[in-house]
Amino acid sequence: MKTAELGYASVDLDRKKRTGVPEVIYGAGKNAEEIIGIASTLREAGQEPVLVTRIDEDKAEACAEAFGEDFIYHKNAQIGVLGKIPAADGVGKIVVLTGGTSDIPVAEEAALTAETMGNEVIRHYDVGVAGLHRLLAHEDDIASATVIIAVAGMEGALASVVAGLAPCPVIAVPTSVGYGASFGGLSALLSMLNSCASGVSVVNIDNGFGAGFQASLINHVGVKR
Amino acid sequence: MKTAELGYASVDLDRKKRTGVPEVIYGAGKNAEEIIGIASTLREAGQEPVLVTRIDEDKAEACAEAFGEDFIYHKNAQIGVLGKIPAADGVGKIVVLTGGTSDIPVAEEAALTAETMGNEVIRHYDVGVAGLHRLLAHEDDIASATVIIAVAGMEGALASVVAGLAPCPVIAVPTSVGYGASFGGLSALLSMLNSCASGVSVVNIDNGFGAGFQASLINHVGVKR
Amino acid sequence: MKTAELGYASVDLDRKKRTGVPEVIYGAGKNAEEIIGIASTLREAGQEPVLVTRIDEDKAEACAEAFGEDFIYHKNAQIGVLGKIPAADGVGKIVVLTGGTSDIPVAEEAALTAETMGNEVIRHYDVGVAGLHRLLAHEDDIASATVIIAVAGMEGALASVVAGLAPCPVIAVPTSVGYGASFGGLSALLSMLNSCASGVSVVNIDNGFGAGFQASLINHVGVKR
Amino acid sequence: MKTAELGYASVDLDRKKRTGVPEVIYGAGKNAEEIIGIASTLREAGQEPVLVTRIDEDKAEACAEAFGEDFIYHKNAQIGVLGKIPAADGVGKIVVLTGGTSDIPVAEEAALTAETMGNEVIRHYDVGVAGLHRLLAHEDDIASATVIIAVAGMEGALASVVAGLAPCPVIAVPTSVGYGASFGGLSALLSMLNSCASGVSVVNIDNGFGAGFQASLINHVGVKR
Amino acid sequence: MKTAELGYASVDLDRKKRTGVPEVIYGAGKNAEEIIGIASTLREAGQEPVLVTRIDEDKAEACAEAFGEDFIYHKNAQIGVLGKIPAADGVGKIVVLTGGTSDIPVAEEAALTAETMGNEVIRHYDVGVAGLHRLLAHEDDIASATVIIAVAGMEGALASVVAGLAPCPVIAVPTSVGYGASFGGLSALLSMLNSCASGVSVVNIDNGFGAGFQASLINHVGVKR
Amino acid sequence: MKTAELGYASVDLDRKKRTGVPEVIYGAGKNAEEIIGIASTLREAGQEPVLVTRIDEDKAEACAEAFGEDFIYHKNAQIGVLGKIPAADGVGKIVVLTGGTSDIPVAEEAALTAETMGNEVIRHYDVGVAGLHRLLAHEDDIASATVIIAVAGMEGALASVVAGLAPCPVIAVPTSVGYGASFGGLSALLSMLNSCASGVSVVNIDNGFGAGFQASLINHVGVKR
Amino acid sequence: MKTAELGYASVDLDRKKRTGVPEVIYGAGKNAEEIIGIASTLREAGQEPVLVTRIDEDKAEACAEAFGEDFIYHKNAQIGVLGKIPAADGVGKIVVLTGGTSDIPVAEEAALTAETMGNEVIRHYDVGVAGLHRLLAHEDDIASATVIIAVAGMEGALASVVAGLAPCPVIAVPTSVGYGASFGGLSALLSMLNSCASGVSVVNIDNGFGAGFQASLINHVGVKR
Amino acid sequence: MKTAELGYASVDLDRKKRTGVPEVIYGAGKNAEEIIGIASTLREAGQEPVLVTRIDEDKAEACAEAFGEDFIYHKNAQIGVLGKIPAADGVGKIVVLTGGTSDIPVAEEAALTAETMGNEVIRHYDVGVAGLHRLLAHEDDIASATVIIAVAGMEGALASVVAGLAPCPVIAVPTSVGYGASFGGLSALLSMLNSCASGVSVVNIDNGFGAGFQASLINHVGVKR
Repeated sequence: MKTAELGYASVDLDRKKRTGVPEVIYGAGKNAEEIIGIASTLREAGQEPVLVTRIDEDKAEACAEAFGEDFIYHKNAQIGVLGKIPAADGVGKIVVLTGGTSDIPVAEEAALTAETMGNEVIRHYDVGVAGLHRLLAHEDDIASATVIIAVAGMEGALASVVAGLAPCPVIAVPTSVGYGASFGGLSALLSMLNSCASGVSVVNIDNGFGAGFQASLINHVGVKR
Repeated sequence: MKTAELGYASVDLDRKKRTGVPEVIYGAGKNAEEIIGIASTLREAGQEPVLVTRIDEDKAEACAEAFGEDFIYHKNAQIGVLGKIPAADGVGKIVVLTGGTSDIPVAEEAALTAETMGNEVIRHYDVGVAGLHRLLAHEDDIASATVIIAVAGMEGALASVVAGLAPCPVIAVPTSVGYGASFGGLSALLSMLNSCASGVSVVNIDNGFGAGFQASLINHVGVKR
Repeated sequence: MKTAELGYASVDLDRKKRTGVPEVIYGAGKNAEEIIGIASTLREAGQEPVLVTRIDEDKAEACAEAFGEDFIYHKNAQIGVLGKIPAADGVGKIVVLTGGTSDIPVAEEAALTAETMGNEVIRHYDVGVAGLHRLLAHEDDIASATVIIAVAGMEGALASVVAGLAPCPVIAVPTSVGYGASFGGLSALLSMLNSCASGVSVVNIDNGFGAGFQASLINHVGVKR
Repeated sequence: MKTAELGYASVDLDRKKRTGVPEVIYGAGKNAEEIIGIASTLREAGQEPVLVTRIDEDKAEACAEAFGEDFIYHKNAQIGVLGKIPAADGVGKIVVLTGGTSDIPVAEEAALTAETMGNEVIRHYDVGVAGLHRLLAHEDDIASATVIIAVAGMEGALASVVAGLAPCPVIAVPTSVGYGASFGGLSALLSMLNSCASGVSVVNIDNGFGAGFQASLINHVGVKR
Repeated sequence: MKTAELGYASVDLDRKKRTGVPEVIYGAGKNAEEIIGIASTLREAGQEPVLVTRIDEDKAEACAEAFGEDFIYHKNAQIGVLGKIPAADGVGKIVVLTGGTSDIPVAEEAALTAETMGNEVIRHYDVGVAGLHRLLAHEDDIASATVIIAVAGMEGALASVVAGLAPCPVIAVPTSVGYGASFGGLSALLSMLNSCASGVSVVNIDNGFGAGFQASLINHVGVKR
Repeated sequence: MKTAELGYASVDLDRKKRTGVPEVIYGAGKNAEEIIGIASTLREAGQEPVLVTRIDEDKAEACAEAFGEDFIYHKNAQIGVLGKIPAADGVGKIVVLTGGTSDIPVAEEAALTAETMGNEVIRHYDVGVAGLHRLLAHEDDIASATVIIAVAGMEGALASVVAGLAPCPVIAVPTSVGYGASFGGLSALLSMLNSCASGVSVVNIDNGFGAGFQASLINHVGVKR
Repeated sequence: MKTAELGYASVDLDRKKRTGVPEVIYGAGKNAEEIIGIASTLREAGQEPVLVTRIDEDKAEACAEAFGEDFIYHKNAQIGVLGKIPAADGVGKIVVLTGGTSDIPVAEEAALTAETMGNEVIRHYDVGVAGLHRLLAHEDDIASATVIIAVAGMEGALASVVAGLAPCPVIAVPTSVGYGASFGGLSALLSMLNSCASGVSVVNIDNGFGAGFQASLINHVGVKR
Repeated sequence: MKTAELGYASVDLDRKKRTGVPEVIYGAGKNAEEIIGIASTLREAGQEPVLVTRIDEDKAEACAEAFGEDFIYHKNAQIGVLGKIPAADGVGKIVVLTGGTSDIPVAEEAALTAETMGNEVIRHYDVGVAGLHRLLAHEDDIASATVIIAVAGMEGALASVVAGLAPCPVIAVPTSVGYGASFGGLSALLSMLNSCASGVSVVNIDNGFGAGFQASLINHVGVKR
């Protein structure tokens, strides 16, 4: 395996060739210099587009200065992308749903991750189960999706309801939205793990990236890259 | 307050007059002799019907021997009733729903409690959210209920979906049905407490009695007894 | 169902007709523009009064600028109301109790919600069980209530004591008041769920709105609207 | 310190002299032979009466065979006492209260421990807060106690209410009585730790012995032994 | 939706047509009669093969009597299958791995579920990360899989290591294997949710069925059925 | 019971006469005006000294302005005292111990509470069990105490060791000192509840006041006031 | 790496050469046939002595039949050893301590593991911190140990006290001994992790084997094998 | 034992002689004056080098002013050292590994502690198990270490993988790195406690100091100092 040793990080330069997807930079625990350093290294090794997750506005600005227009920042999702997004080449479409308005940033992290990895994404937000008819209005998209990402906080019931309607894999993303006995997303997490509907799997609380990443893998099953 | 002191228990003989409902016997922590003793005391004081909850088959048999045909045992719900059930005199109907088959004993505890307290009860079981159309088939009953009791284990999503459909109060009963991360009903409990739908309140895990009792109180709001 | 799609939210314009109560705006996860947008939409659709919960002072000021005197802000309860509050048309009275002084904001959220939905509300605050005689001083109000909302943090014993005194449904609201082993309201929540008194159901920690909403539904059982 | 080394245990033969109270045998993790061995050793060293807690019927029978009438077994409390119980020589009286019937075994463990250590004990059982008037019937005993032991499961509210009425120290004993969200006594434990009343301290779940022991220490403050 | 109402269950007779997979019977909360009843109903509606999960030996024997040789019981996985297993028609292969020997029953539940749904399955058991070389011996199978199911208890590290090696989706199944601080599978569950490797999603503790089901959905992405 | 109704609080004016100790003001949830109002009311009713706990510097300054030199503020313990501290009239001495330096503020809350209530207090701080000889240096004070308050965070072992040395009641106070798996004092709390030494009871995390209050009650057993 | 593939297990035949210690058989999740099969394979490969942990009496009897006198079973520790125990060749001595009598089985698992791996072990049992003088009686052994294993349940304070006395590494083993708020060893585990004494590390609840194994590694630092 | 009583602390002046290592100052709960006071006291008593852990930049600056060039501050690890670091005199080498970049501060706390105590330390950072080949690149260092410190957050799998490769003791340090269901390091902690590999013990979350301290003790087994 070819790696670049930057001292503060050991960068995988082979991953795109090996897995079809370049290494992703988790921005939360790194400063702007480190992010720019790793991103440059990846770019020089042809590992584009470089996806940076959990990057705040200040660091994003530094990246924008360093890379110019090649770097696009999505503030709501706290995602930065360096380089051109590839054309969608997946099997079908990824549908991203949220229970409420406050779940949107996590959903956008998932959606942008999937788009950066070459997927067509359909978004339907604020379709929580307390207003079932809002969800059922999108029954066609749900029925024809290749993968569905269900993002919800509080009681996290969206995943079960959607999985009951959809014949495809559902990736559930609990969010830390809520208060009191939601315990920072624990309530939604447990709810989703205990879904009475088949075909649901779960990622960490607020882990939009992980959901988008796996959804892309699923949407590329059987696709040569 | 008039009480009978039996040594092992201090029995309230005024409750029916004071609240419209006689004292209920929680059978779990008492032996057959104690249950029969308290039940006889209540009966003699005109506090009928006497409801005994969480009473297993052996104790129920002892009661049946003591009281004869006046004592009816409902095995599935582990409930015994001594004396005549009053005619339904509530405002409307109480609808009891369950997510799955395994939730039925708890639902029956709720339904029988409510019936013993003078309510008309409609049951729809195995209508969990993973098969939404099974639930929606009962939309009319849901819309016209005075109170709804939603009984569910695992992810407990039933309460939120139902509360979104119903204009009446919904009492959610989490059950200990499930395994793994359901943690003995904790998952369903948290889910129900975090319901994104308005109008839901929650009772203890497996507390069908509590739900039936409160549903009856609600169904008798404004009713003179 | 008629909805207005605002992009950031999908607004239910039929709810008042369908359930007697317009959609409520949860202000916490929304900015001032979104709140004003949804409130205007609801108002134009005749869905008044519009209740906005968990709205801080800054957003409330923006609303006041937008709507003028039609918008009233209750700072302690973090509630805003747009439009005229209807006359009380419930079956009886809702009594709101708190264990201590620190529980008052949550209690006010419950009380104002109920008043906005057309209920007469009686408040007795700082009547916790450590000073039983302060609570017993209000025994008459407790005995004649249609519904009682018991708001308490720390050990949450208020709900059990009140439910033992009252013949009506009691909605318990645990609060996050306390420190150490109160674990953000968990102690009060568990205490209330395990109440040894019949007739108690529980809502999420600090969920004054949920308690007021359900209390109103209960107080309108059998009432045509 | 004088100890007897029995191989399976290291027995303190000085404790009565040093602290006024002989070492107590915790029977749960020991077999009958070990219990008899330790009890004999203590007795020979004049450390009477020997208290054995958490001893089941089988082991108690073996002890009865070994020690004859000098050994008294209290089945409900799972306590055995070898030797004569001393006359009560405390400052005043210890009052033991329980919320319900199922809490009685734990309360008896506390009461018998205290009696074995030379205290007068008053018992009032089944006086939980859901029937406040049953508790208030004993207000005089509560007001004149030297120490109160409040034993309760479920929501554990008894401790707070009693501490509000009593001017003396209250030792709260949570019990594992209950189901669902009582989590084996955790609910009562947290409730008691968060008591809003001053003067309450707490021992481990079901630890009647610990409560009786400390109550005796308190009731002997200033007493020469 | 066409359903059969059996009283104790509401059976979906359209699912195979709608989703390509018939309804599955969760055997744990049902008695033999109920299982046979539902299975017969499904079979008559052409919903074969009928998969019964969590079915113990006694119930399986009753099924064997009822259905004869058409019913095959897999004791280790507690799975019964009624009817012919379809030929594998997925995109590629599903690889099932376990950390230890004790995880095998859960892994078999996953593997048999997937096989029943038309998938080729490769098993490599007892390849936990404490003996890395045992895992690396199967690097080729891991690299060429379409989906991987990683089953592990205790610290659950298998999922992260495998996901680092594999370019395909990994479904992690925590098991309740372990003792002490494994807390019934909670340790493995948390570990898997926090995987530092991309491409991992998680199902409930011991939920082999859920993993096998979703793996099959993924392995049939783009496949017409 | 004579109370003063201040609107924001219901003040008990009889408590000193009834229990020997005036009502205490918990400053955390009240603003300076409320504290001053309640303190004035108590003072005018002769309920001195007035103890205010959990009062920060700003509020204390306001009190100092209102009451002048009659109000003394103890910054470390966040305690204010209005009026003259009574002479010590207890049975013996209260010994307050801490495991480390960071536990001192909680210990001071306990010590000052006890002093305000008429007790002689001996302090030995930073005598944690990791340096046993530092603790044993105070063995005489421990052996002759009437009550001991053991304040410790982290693993909370101090209480057990001290209770093994002392023949008197030990009140254990867990503190939120520590990091990581101390979980805000939970570790120390559980440790103290499980003490293998007899004679230990526990108060809430960081509840120095509660410990000092109960210690004073114990130290006044048999004392007329 | 040379392995033997038995189908139900993949056995490491190189470990003794590679690490000085043969593979150990965890007996809990295996049946007698599997244990005998793995043990035979190890023995034939010269990997003696073979240690089998968590093996119950029935399986041990089967092993004894299979291997005759070469197999020794230690019932208390649930350990079986096949083959000759090597002479002690460590740097110094391992001291194993327990807080109480009930901790002995876990301590024996540690001690026997260490002895099987070539260590001299000194045992001092029932020396919990509530009777400090019993522990201090062994201060010399503690001061001269190379490694100490401190085994304790309940509040787990033993580890901190010992680590304060000893200049060597202390391995703490929490046990599941206790009841109520000991939560199956969680209390002791947290206590040990938060030890205020330096030099303590912790293994899983009841993991005597892990402690004995690591203690042996430490006692062989710098020793050629 | 010779101690210096500073009022705010009781300083052990004998520890270096007794245990080979001077007392360490935990800077978190102390102000600059206290740190300087204790450090001076230790230095004057010849207890050098003085290690100060968890000391922030402000306090470090004050120390630098007080002690001049004799005081070296390591900002990343929040460690200050007063006096000359001794030559490495351990048995072999300590290898410190981290899973990711964010774990480095904790690892540096461990490494610097060990170096200050006279050990040669080898660092390999960012070698988490998701990129196994990065870890295996250091297999030689792992195989020849005397002790290994494995520092990791999130799922904490590093410890198990490393312990499977290494024949020496592994000290696992969970870190609070992560989000969502990592619960402040709890996930990594549980994972490490449940390691399926032998030879792992665990210290508190983020406790780099504890790991470095114990590693030094292990690396000096059999070494005279």
